[in-house]
This record gives sequence, structure tokens and C-alpha cells, in this order.
Amino acid sequence: MKRRGVLAVVSGFSGAGKGTLMKNLLNQYDNYALSISMTTRLPREGEENGREYFFVSKEIFEEKVQQDGLVEYACYCDNYYGTPREYVESQMAMGKDVLLEIEIQGALKVKEKFPEALLLFVMPPSAKELENRLTGRGTESADVVAKRLCRAVVEAQGIENYDYIVINDDLEVCTQELHSIIRTAHRSVGRNEEFIENMRQELNVLVKGEK
Amino acid sequence: MKRRGVLAVVSGFSGAGKGTLMKNLLNQYDNYALSISMTTRLPREGEENGREYFFVSKEIFEEKVQQDGLVEYACYCDNYYGTPREYVESQMAMGKDVLLEIEIQGALKVKEKFPEALLLFVMPPSAKELENRLTGRGTESADVVAKRLCRAVVEAQGIENYDYIVINDDLEVCTQELHSIIRTAHRSVGRNEEFIENMRQELNVLVKGEK
Repeated sequence: MKRRGVLAVVSGFSGAGKGTLMKNLLNQYDNYALSISMTTRLPREGEENGREYFFVSKEIFEEKVQQDGLVEYACYCDNYYGTPREYVESQMAMGKDVLLEIEIQGALKVKEKFPEALLLFVMPPSAKELENRLTGRGTESADVVAKRLCRAVVEAQGIENYDYIVINDDLEVCTQELHSIIRTAHRSVGRNEEFIENMRQELNVLVKGEK
Repeated sequence: MKRRGVLAVVSGFSGAGKGTLMKNLLNQYDNYALSISMTTRLPREGEENGREYFFVSKEIFEEKVQQDGLVEYACYCDNYYGTPREYVESQMAMGKDVLLEIEIQGALKVKEKFPEALLLFVMPPSAKELENRLTGRGTESADVVAKRLCRAVVEAQGIENYDYIVINDDLEVCTQELHSIIRTAHRSVGRNEEFIENMRQELNVLVKGEK
């Protein structure tokens, strides 16, 4: 039997670099699988079913909700977005560490259903640096930047619900750190109950055999 | 101000390789300091005060106990052994991750006084391998090996009190894993309250400045 994977929930301010970090982990290591959301919104130009999202009808989405087939879901701008439970479960069963990029409300719902999930919060080294990155993209209006900073203020209230923070200063260093935190979770006593129990039994046999 | 170091308590079966792991960490990285025990037993040939142990008289030891100057202590074969608090505290204050090799009773006492201490348990890959290593040393009689295995049975009862297990199969891999677990502790939300609070304040200033 393969060791069960870790469910790593990744949140963080917009502009902290979550997306690139996920991509780095997936490219550099083979122990990861990226959770893909299900949505009722229509695919955009270039998006593929099963890559960016699983695109489904409202009826199918609501059926999934009824069947408890989503780890969490929410409604934005009249469209549903959710995390299919089956994909997460099956990847973990195959030993993959599942990366789930999601905002705090969703993260807390995931933690309810998977108490052993690892909650990670990605942060820039400073608020000023966050502003620079948001402005530096050049694609966002001052208004959008201001909105994202406001959103960061709200999100920062919830950081105590997370297990670890990851500071994204140097992207490569941060990727390694994130990887290291997730691999460390595999060594927790709670995740090794079977190994520990086997060791106890083996030791007992040895000691009795020697008496 | 330097970030406070982590107190890493390392336990494990005799023969699991704790000593070599500690030595490796100290040799390969500069973030570690090894806690040195205080004892009332006499120095053996080649032992140096302040290297293997701090050698003190019974009076001085008992004075330390009275002053709450020891994180934990115990009595074996009419001699006291204990962990001086001052060294642990000062090294952590200087940002060093302090390694404390100690058996389970001591580890639990340390956890009482330092609830944020990281409790690590080193194990061989299997009980059979433990026996091989104990026998393979060639220096121990069958009687001593049997005693050590009995002791392992008792110690294995307490593993659930630890945070992580580290399986020492390949020494180099295990050293890196131990290092990685200890460095990960630095990223816990609890150890970064100040950073998180600063971030919140900076974000608030930015957002107010932009309104």
C-alpha cells in the first residue's frame, strides 16, 4: 500500500506568488498533484476542461453538492466554484501530495472535512513589497491595486487559522521551503501510526524470542 | 533582535544513531548548539568539563535544582544528571536551534517547561535492523543487547508524546530530514506572531494612505 499523501491548502495575498510556487513544485517534484476546481462558469478562450477547471452545468454542480461530492464550494458572480472530493481523495490514496490553492473561507471548510490538512499561508516579505508587485505588474489600475490591498487586510485577520507561513522573497528559496514543510508533515507521529505499531509488535517478538 | 531558536529534543532507541545524527547536524550547519548536561559523576579519562558534561559537586547540583536552574534532572546510579536552563535559554536567545538528546521522561519534563519545544524520536527502519546494529557493534554482550531491546519496548510506548519520527536508514538522508523538520518549525504561525502583526500594521497604513 502506498503511503497516503498530504493535503496542502495554500492561501495568501493576491500578488504573493502562490500560482508560480504551485507551478514550481509541480515542475520540480513528482510527488505533487494540483487539485482542479469545478465551476459552472463558461470556459474562456484557451481554457481546457480538466486543466484550468472542470466545466459543468449548474445542474451537475448542484447534484455534486447534494452528494457531498465537494470538499468546499462557493458562489462568485452568479457562478459556482468548488473542489471535487473524489480527485483529492484518489490522488492522496495514490500517495500524491495534493496542492489546493484556495482563499481562507474555503481553507477553513477543507480543514473541517480533512482535519489533517496542512494549511499554508504565502506572504510577501513586507506590505510595501506586496504593493510594489501589484503595481509593477502594470496591468492593474490603481483602483484594482487598492482593492487587492484592502482584501489583504481582511485576509491577514485569519492567518492564525493556518499552520505555517511561507515568506516569498526569493522564489526558488520559497519553493524549496514550501516543499520542505510539506515533506515534513509526512514525518508527524499522527501520520505514522501504522509504522509505529508495527515497530512495537516486531520489538515484542524479538524480545520474547530472546528470553 | 535575533529570531529565537528552536529547542529540539531528540530521543530514540539506543542504537538508532542519535549521537551521530547530532554530530552531523553540528558539523554541517551553523544554526545548532548542543545542550550539555550537568552531572555529579566524576569525569572519565579523556572527558572535559564543558564538552561531554559540566562536572559539578552534589552541593552545586542541588543548589541548581533549588534555584530552578535545570530544565529537567534525574538520578542514575547515585549520580545526578540534568539540563542547565541557562545555556539552553541563552543559545535560543542568540538564535541557535538547541539540540537536546535525552530519554522520554526528561523529554516530557522539557515539554512542560518549554511547550513550544519540538519532540523528535529517532527510529531504525525496523526492529530487526535495530537488533543487527546492537549486535554488530560487537562490543556488547548478548545480555546487554537483550536489555537494550527490552528498553526499546518500554520507550516505544511513549512515542505518541512526540511530534515527529525520523527513520534512520541512510544516515545522510536522515540528517537532512532532521534538519528540514527543525527548520520547518521556524515557519509555524505561532513562531511568527511578530512578523504577522507587523504585516497587518503595514497593510493598514498602506490602505489608509491610499484612500
